[in-house]
Amino acid sequence: MRATLIHGERDIRLEEVPDPILSTGGDAIVRVVAACVCGSDLWPYRGIVATHEAHRIGHEFVGVVEEVGPNVRKVVVGDFVIAPFYDCDNTCVNCRNGVSTSCQHGGWWGGDDEFGAFADGGQGERVRVPHADGTLVATPDYPSDELIPSLLTLSDVMGTGHHAAVSAGVRHGSTVVVVGDGAVGLCAVLASKRLGASRIVAMSRHEARQDLAREFGATDIVEERGDAGVARVKAMFDDIGADCVLECVGTKESMDQAIRSPRPGGMVGYVGAPNGGPELPVRRLFNTNVGVNGGVAPVRGYIEELLVDVLAGSIEPGPVFDLELPLADVAEAYAAMDERRAIKVLLRP
Amino acid sequence: MRATLIHGERDIRLEEVPDPILSTGGDAIVRVVAACVCGSDLWPYRGIVATHEAHRIGHEFVGVVEEVGPNVRKVVVGDFVIAPFYDCDNTCVNCRNGVSTSCQHGGWWGGDDEFGAFADGGQGERVRVPHADGTLVATPDYPSDELIPSLLTLSDVMGTGHHAAVSAGVRHGSTVVVVGDGAVGLCAVLASKRLGASRIVAMSRHEARQDLAREFGATDIVEERGDAGVARVKAMFDDIGADCVLECVGTKESMDQAIRSPRPGGMVGYVGAPNGGPELPVRRLFNTNVGVNGGVAPVRGYIEELLVDVLAGSIEPGPVFDLELPLADVAEAYAAMDERRAIKVLLRP
Repeated sequence: MRATLIHGERDIRLEEVPDPILSTGGDAIVRVVAACVCGSDLWPYRGIVATHEAHRIGHEFVGVVEEVGPNVRKVVVGDFVIAPFYDCDNTCVNCRNGVSTSCQHGGWWGGDDEFGAFADGGQGERVRVPHADGTLVATPDYPSDELIPSLLTLSDVMGTGHHAAVSAGVRHGSTVVVVGDGAVGLCAVLASKRLGASRIVAMSRHEARQDLAREFGATDIVEERGDAGVARVKAMFDDIGADCVLECVGTKESMDQAIRSPRPGGMVGYVGAPNGGPELPVRRLFNTNVGVNGGVAPVRGYIEELLVDVLAGSIEPGPVFDLELPLADVAEAYAAMDERRAIKVLLRP
Repeated sequence: MRATLIHGERDIRLEEVPDPILSTGGDAIVRVVAACVCGSDLWPYRGIVATHEAHRIGHEFVGVVEEVGPNVRKVVVGDFVIAPFYDCDNTCVNCRNGVSTSCQHGGWWGGDDEFGAFADGGQGERVRVPHADGTLVATPDYPSDELIPSLLTLSDVMGTGHHAAVSAGVRHGSTVVVVGDGAVGLCAVLASKRLGASRIVAMSRHEARQDLAREFGATDIVEERGDAGVARVKAMFDDIGADCVLECVGTKESMDQAIRSPRPGGMVGYVGAPNGGPELPVRRLFNTNVGVNGGVAPVRGYIEELLVDVLAGSIEPGPVFDLELPLADVAEAYAAMDERRAIKVLLRP
């Protein structure tokens, strides 16, 4: 089959690789219907994270189950399934605690599972899925083609935006600021709207992303950053700041912006993978009782809940994909996101 | 009247000072019935915080209202009152949000209020209380003498321990680790018990404090610190850690201990004033979805709730005072706490 490998900085190739083979009893083979490129894939692409040897890449996909191992009970051949950006058994104590990203038997796409068997990357034609019953969520029926983008967001960005909102305690009537206008930030706007936020500020300087943010429920756009951005936000909310601030970038600058924007007693929900830092200034947080909560989003646990709303049409996160390419053009997909010509690119094998 | 001043490192003096005078309309004069020394008072005492010029000190007291200004409506002369460790109007947006420590018109004992009028320190015979209606909470009746210590804890340490527990999300069935065996840590044990924690680990190496922790509801004592302490805690809780960890010290070492002790998805509630640091390692927090929440405890908002339980006898935090001295011996009170001969010293003017 064909699958994507990264060989080094700005070197993405679709190559012929061995077909996946069932090997652990509880696994499944999924034929990928749609995959995509993640903002975090751009780190190795840009060389910010070094690529020491070529490896598979991609961790978001939806598809159809083609084979299942003898111990698989819930997932059946023919199911249309959503995979989270990791595998998990969904039964261990951490999964039961709602933190399936810390599954005691889980792993990451493009690496070995707990038995040492390879789990393919998501940007390919097929994927061997460990812990198929724990990892995969099947839709009730085979979805229409127009639903595919929204379903694919449940693999990562919609669940991650939701995790930011949940971690920050967004609820009915909350005032919310979203730092970051990438796919996760936009989904965080949508998630906040879904949870009943009364006012949602999207911090964005890009017109197309501002438009999508408004479509997703943003009531206000703030273009300023740094001190000016913080001042604008405070001025909008009684000169004290917002109840909840969702950090969806992961840089030192964005986290600094985020932790200065809540009101006293407010909460920062953060899901932007902190790339080598930053450290949090505890004295500032202490003085104003601002909490910081979040992390790598345990999206597996959110899929069922969000799926209901996607199928009902009450949320439609799919428009975060503003470019669709065949898998053969995966290198161009990376380039388009790297150059900010696209928010997020959907790939069809 | 007589009041305590700090002149410099290990230089505490009870001196004759001017009597307080009503001056802002909304203030009251309280005759102090009991005051105490706080762990944070030891910072200037030890010279960790420099004392540039002599100033009043002490921020925890209970007493009797002797005079009220013409705009005071709720508090009346003769009331027995509990003062939080700061003054607040209890009506501004931050107070309404439950963060009265960020009151827009509040201040600190021993400093000037918003009108520039002096608010006495707590370790004296009388205190002028700004925003008397917002700041003070009156007991229904004049309390018995044996209740005084427990009521005095509502000024700071009991409310602060409670804030640690609330900030960490302690609820029925939670597993809890308390880092710190000072008065606040011990009160955090009691607060966790009150909130229904199923298991409470007190980290302590001092036998008297261990005994009090057990009396307050600790189910386990851990004497180890650092890596060994973290390992012990993890081993006690499914090898993953506790739901909630309450940081009640404020040093780099104690915060490090605290953030390594929760299970994935757990929460650190911290109330130990971070003395010049530390910064929080966001990558570690991110990977395990451990949140950090808390800060300078808005105890004013907790007094009514905790007072009900103190008056009913269902909590008795008073035993954190293991030494009682006349106000004249205030210098000895500091020395006893500094040398860890006492957990916390109660002073009677």
